[in-house]
Amino acid sequence: MTRIGILGGGQLGRMLVLAGAPLGLEFLILDPTPNGPAGQVAEQLVAPYDDEAALREIASRCDVATFEFENVPAAAVTQLSEAIPVHPRAEALFAGQDRLSEKTLFRSLGMETAPFLAVDDEAGLRAAISEIGLPAVLKTRREGYDGKGQAVVRVESEAEEAFARLGGKPLILEGFVPFERELSILAVRSARGETAFYPLVDNRHREGILRLSRVPAIGIDAAIQTKAEEEARRLIEELDYVGVLAIEYFFLDGRLLANEMAPRVHNSGHWTTDGAVTSQFENHVRAVMGFPLGATSAVGTSAMVNLIGEVPDLDAMLEVPFAHVHLYGKDARPERKLGHVTVNAPDAGVVASSLKQLNDLVREPALDD
Amino acid sequence: MTRIGILGGGQLGRMLVLAGAPLGLEFLILDPTPNGPAGQVAEQLVAPYDDEAALREIASRCDVATFEFENVPAAAVTQLSEAIPVHPRAEALFAGQDRLSEKTLFRSLGMETAPFLAVDDEAGLRAAISEIGLPAVLKTRREGYDGKGQAVVRVESEAEEAFARLGGKPLILEGFVPFERELSILAVRSARGETAFYPLVDNRHREGILRLSRVPAIGIDAAIQTKAEEEARRLIEELDYVGVLAIEYFFLDGRLLANEMAPRVHNSGHWTTDGAVTSQFENHVRAVMGFPLGATSAVGTSAMVNLIGEVPDLDAMLEVPFAHVHLYGKDARPERKLGHVTVNAPDAGVVASSLKQLNDLVREPALDD
Repeated sequence: MTRIGILGGGQLGRMLVLAGAPLGLEFLILDPTPNGPAGQVAEQLVAPYDDEAALREIASRCDVATFEFENVPAAAVTQLSEAIPVHPRAEALFAGQDRLSEKTLFRSLGMETAPFLAVDDEAGLRAAISEIGLPAVLKTRREGYDGKGQAVVRVESEAEEAFARLGGKPLILEGFVPFERELSILAVRSARGETAFYPLVDNRHREGILRLSRVPAIGIDAAIQTKAEEEARRLIEELDYVGVLAIEYFFLDGRLLANEMAPRVHNSGHWTTDGAVTSQFENHVRAVMGFPLGATSAVGTSAMVNLIGEVPDLDAMLEVPFAHVHLYGKDARPERKLGHVTVNAPDAGVVASSLKQLNDLVREPALDD
Repeated sequence: MTRIGILGGGQLGRMLVLAGAPLGLEFLILDPTPNGPAGQVAEQLVAPYDDEAALREIASRCDVATFEFENVPAAAVTQLSEAIPVHPRAEALFAGQDRLSEKTLFRSLGMETAPFLAVDDEAGLRAAISEIGLPAVLKTRREGYDGKGQAVVRVESEAEEAFARLGGKPLILEGFVPFERELSILAVRSARGETAFYPLVDNRHREGILRLSRVPAIGIDAAIQTKAEEEARRLIEELDYVGVLAIEYFFLDGRLLANEMAPRVHNSGHWTTDGAVTSQFENHVRAVMGFPLGATSAVGTSAMVNLIGEVPDLDAMLEVPFAHVHLYGKDARPERKLGHVTVNAPDAGVVASSLKQLNDLVREPALDD
């Protein structure tokens, strides 16, 4: 029996377990919170991520380790890496944790981004504003997710309040991008160096949280797909990356502006479970195990709606044609991701109709038209 | 949290668990053998099926119970049924356990079968042979599966040896059907009375064990599909059946001859995981929970190859285009079902090509041409 250790026991870990079980793999989860989404479907060690005994147990019982989120202590990754293969490696795992070095990396690889500058104090903010212009977005360099740790500065008078709210931590000011679309690409690279790329995903966020993904991304031509794949390839090769990695883009005037990366399976790839030949979860497992990768092509048309804060009536969701319900076994809490529903069908009109039905069921509509 | 109890901890239970987890369901397995296929992915009570304490625990912790095989003691089903809903109900679960009453039921519902007669002694066998003719198949009325408990009688002189081998148990003699194809249909009926039917599956057995399933069944017209659905509907309604049920047919000269039924998810439905809108496993779970059923239509062309006795090289299987590998976490043993591989693609030619590749990998080829 081959066993994979996963640091993190949330829904991403849960779906990795469910995708890996058919390949005959077992999993061992490390997460300080008992009975989370992954711990409900696999054995879990309930301990802090840097618990040395727990890490030793993973090292002794698992063939390889991976992550379902990136906020693990560096020391834990180091300890584990000394004993068993860990994918992605520490440098790749942490490469996106600081927005400044992340965007600097993007630029060094020829990837276009919004203009950005480091901000360490109020004087620095004023200097950055005069350089970048307004509107702009002030962000903490670390630990922001789902729109947290951000403040939009529309006019100069808002700068002080934004700094008061976020200051004290290293910051970055980024030019505001009046984007038309948010796109993401999922790339996967295996321990044997094989690479594959999923089709670009059209994402819609609200209040910083992903609400809706659609594939194919309408009106995105092959040249844009190729450009995204080339950029993703440069990035995963530069990082000697193993596993699934997501890049989120703003799309503006036919240009892809790289916004951030995530060194793991990603919410914008959840459609792949029901809408691609091989899901992102199975391909991440294949990648870290050094197995051949599965085909990443889309089958038909797909949409994915996040269930945020509240799970709609299950019967009503199951009645939506071509819908696949994925719940995470979490208690409801405002703004919490509790599950998602995918719709996959050969016909785009059928998907649009089911999506509209789903949109009427969720508390926070994903569609605004 | 809703929890389903499953009596039986084999691969069918494992796949029910993996299909039910995305719906937010938990499972509790009862099986006397520890760490079986289902026990690796869900909590398991290791106890005999008629262990009263274990059954009480299932009754107290589960909302509903079901089965992944039918050879459970009637007393266990009775005890459980008095406490929580059990699907399918005992009478339906056991209706197929005796080949004589099973075929009598088929006949009473207007379903065609091979000629059959009960055989209790050698004189009865001779009488049955003169009535039915030869060749014929002598079978034990109970506990036969995967071709066990059967003997073909080609000429009269073989009757004595066949009786010597199988006699001592109640027997049945059936006319030998020189069938062109073996077909099966999977029906599902929910606790709310909703019904659905999968497309007929073309199955190939060898040594009594299913080797290969293909969908669509080539050359089977809509009238045959309709006839099979009508028969399946009469059967599940007669039995007040809840869950997935399979009927296996011989197909001869355009006629469907009902051979046997299985009151559970079925090996010939494994293609549905990757080739139907809703898998048989998810629909069984939906049915026993009283949820709306999911669409049973096939997507593209599918094939399923059983891995019997030996698991081929995993890398080689994963490299087969459009292949999905499903391993059960069992130790290898001759004739044991260790896993299966499905192939699903829009194009039948692609499926045929992948099937040929798979056929070259498995120890016991599924294709003979």
